[in-house]
Amino acid sequence: MKKIGIADTTFARFDMFKSAVDELHKMGTGFEIERYTVPGIKDLPIACQRLIESGADIVMALGMPGPEPIDKQCADQASKALLYVELKKNTHIIEVFVHEDEAEKEELKGLADMRAREHAVNVYDLLFRPERLEEKAGQGKREGYPDVGPLR
Amino acid sequence: MKKIGIADTTFARFDMFKSAVDELHKMGTGFEIERYTVPGIKDLPIACQRLIESGADIVMALGMPGPEPIDKQCADQASKALLYVELKKNTHIIEVFVHEDEAEKEELKGLADMRAREHAVNVYDLLFRPERLEEKAGQGKREGYPDVGPLR
Amino acid sequence: MKKIGIADTTFARFDMFKSAVDELHKMGTGFEIERYTVPGIKDLPIACQRLIESGADIVMALGMPGPEPIDKQCADQASKALLYVELKKNTHIIEVFVHEDEAEKEELKGLADMRAREHAVNVYDLLFRPERLEEKAGQGKREGYPDVGPLR
Amino acid sequence: MKKIGIADTTFARFDMFKSAVDELHKMGTGFEIERYTVPGIKDLPIACQRLIESGADIVMALGMPGPEPIDKQCADQASKALLYVELKKNTHIIEVFVHEDEAEKEELKGLADMRAREHAVNVYDLLFRPERLEEKAGQGKREGYPDVGPLR
Amino acid sequence: MKKIGIADTTFARFDMFKSAVDELHKMGTGFEIERYTVPGIKDLPIACQRLIESGADIVMALGMPGPEPIDKQCADQASKALLYVELKKNTHIIEVFVHEDEAEKEELKGLADMRAREHAVNVYDLLFRPERLEEKAGQGKREGYPDVGPLR
Repeated sequence: MKKIGIADTTFARFDMFKSAVDELHKMGTGFEIERYTVPGIKDLPIACQRLIESGADIVMALGMPGPEPIDKQCADQASKALLYVELKKNTHIIEVFVHEDEAEKEELKGLADMRAREHAVNVYDLLFRPERLEEKAGQGKREGYPDVGPLR
Repeated sequence: MKKIGIADTTFARFDMFKSAVDELHKMGTGFEIERYTVPGIKDLPIACQRLIESGADIVMALGMPGPEPIDKQCADQASKALLYVELKKNTHIIEVFVHEDEAEKEELKGLADMRAREHAVNVYDLLFRPERLEEKAGQGKREGYPDVGPLR
Repeated sequence: MKKIGIADTTFARFDMFKSAVDELHKMGTGFEIERYTVPGIKDLPIACQRLIESGADIVMALGMPGPEPIDKQCADQASKALLYVELKKNTHIIEVFVHEDEAEKEELKGLADMRAREHAVNVYDLLFRPERLEEKAGQGKREGYPDVGPLR
Repeated sequence: MKKIGIADTTFARFDMFKSAVDELHKMGTGFEIERYTVPGIKDLPIACQRLIESGADIVMALGMPGPEPIDKQCADQASKALLYVELKKNTHIIEVFVHEDEAEKEELKGLADMRAREHAVNVYDLLFRPERLEEKAGQGKREGYPDVGPLR
Repeated sequence: MKKIGIADTTFARFDMFKSAVDELHKMGTGFEIERYTVPGIKDLPIACQRLIESGADIVMALGMPGPEPIDKQCADQASKALLYVELKKNTHIIEVFVHEDEAEKEELKGLADMRAREHAVNVYDLLFRPERLEEKAGQGKREGYPDVGPLR
């Protein structure tokens, strides 16, 4: 039995946790899920660290940075700290960030839903079937958007 | 009995410590507060580290970066170091920064007061009732400004 | 018998792994190769760390950052984390990044192929004949592009 | 008997060490001073680390970054490394940087002198009377420039 | 007998190693030199780390970043990692970077030669006569360019 940790925020404007969990359950079984909700994206790194210490074999960090320059800076700080935790704990943390200015409102909901789902597949693959990732190496895969495919 | 550490600066132009403490006491009991005042925001990380070593279960870092590019850079350096302390000590540090150019003077006072208070609620929730945060996940919460709410 | 680790991504639009392996085998023998494929460039640092823990004497990190500012930022975060792993594990990690906006499509394929190959030579040199690098010191060598040569 | 470490550079164009020492001696007694001079600001972090290992209870890092973009970048790198040493050694390092483009030549001398002096007071306060800092919290204190005071 | 480590690259377009060694030998005796050549500036940090582990008492990191924005970013990453090694190993690493766009070609050769030589003097001073640096504190020293001198 594996454990998948999922950290999310009250700052985000869409419940990506629900999308990720729904997709994970479509993929298969053999795992349980633990959630840790924090105020903002800069609180995600410690949430992920604690999820790993609580037994998570892999973690998803769900965040939705705002459109202002300061939001971009916070996202950059959070990303760097997530990488630090990942290396310190030697455990994959899949960062799932959707920037509020990536798309218009209605489209943004679809993007957040799809990105959470497609990264949930990555999480499942890393945990249970890494050979699937190797098959897709260099294939121009994208999460949330259509794949761009390999160069021709 | 829990301990909440609060670090603040002489550089700031508003006493956010007072707002945070007032709000914390409105929330409930079961905690004591320890304060550590330093000259500027770049001194906050070590103040937070020492508060944690002094027994704090969670820390607030109150700062008010100036409006110049160099101030923004200092804030970025301070934020990164706060994240580092947080992960090293495995203890939540809630960064409460109000940028001097976020609003005009009178409005800035209200913003600083409100942000300190709303983050004080986050601190209380993280410490005593994390389930409240989970209920608010993905709800577009903001601190200091009105909530933007979930995408519709 | 040495081990060369190679980490690559499903995000990349060209199979640089194939080029690197082909070139390595042209160089000589005395090594085996282990591969670790991840979704994106920010997952490369932990892949490299795990390859080193799995016995790799040197690692290549193959990535192909997209053309948007956010892609550049991700590449910067990934590079910094790769450096951190390299120093923590005291093992060379050769970063082989090809930016999607470095060249037009057809040319980009050639660039990715050539950069992977020329860095494969660097990897071989670092592992088996470091004196070759010393001979080329200060000679304006470039990987993927023609050498610019020493200043005259 | 406390020890105050002071690191400075040959790159700087004003002897801030002299100003800091003069001011410290005006404040009181009970401390000795150890100096460590290095070529440039990027050498300050290791100088501070060595001063702390040599017994310093607090350190001042005196630097004067040049006006070019590369100088700003070096200052940013140095600042981040100073924060890292501070947290690693759990010892306050007060960064006293005067940017060459902050003021015209004659004014710049006065600024460097005053900033070194006013930060020397901070150092003394942190070491001997931290309650003074608490009294000044949120009061809009500035070092080198006139205080801006609290928001009204 | 002291050991001076020198790390350099095949990317650089001028043999700064030769200049540094020539100048060091003009300064005096009592040291031996160990060289470690790598492909690019981002490989310098691990080269320096290994030189220190091989017994170097101080290290020079010689690099020549290209003129493009990506080159500047690589130089920034390398510089930060060099600082990290320096602090981790508690050993001075003197960064000697010459940016390709600092000067025109012929002038660039002279600049690279002079900067390597003047930093070689710094290395010698740090190792054998630190009091020389203290004498030059605040004097506006520059490496590669004429000294700007103290503010008047």
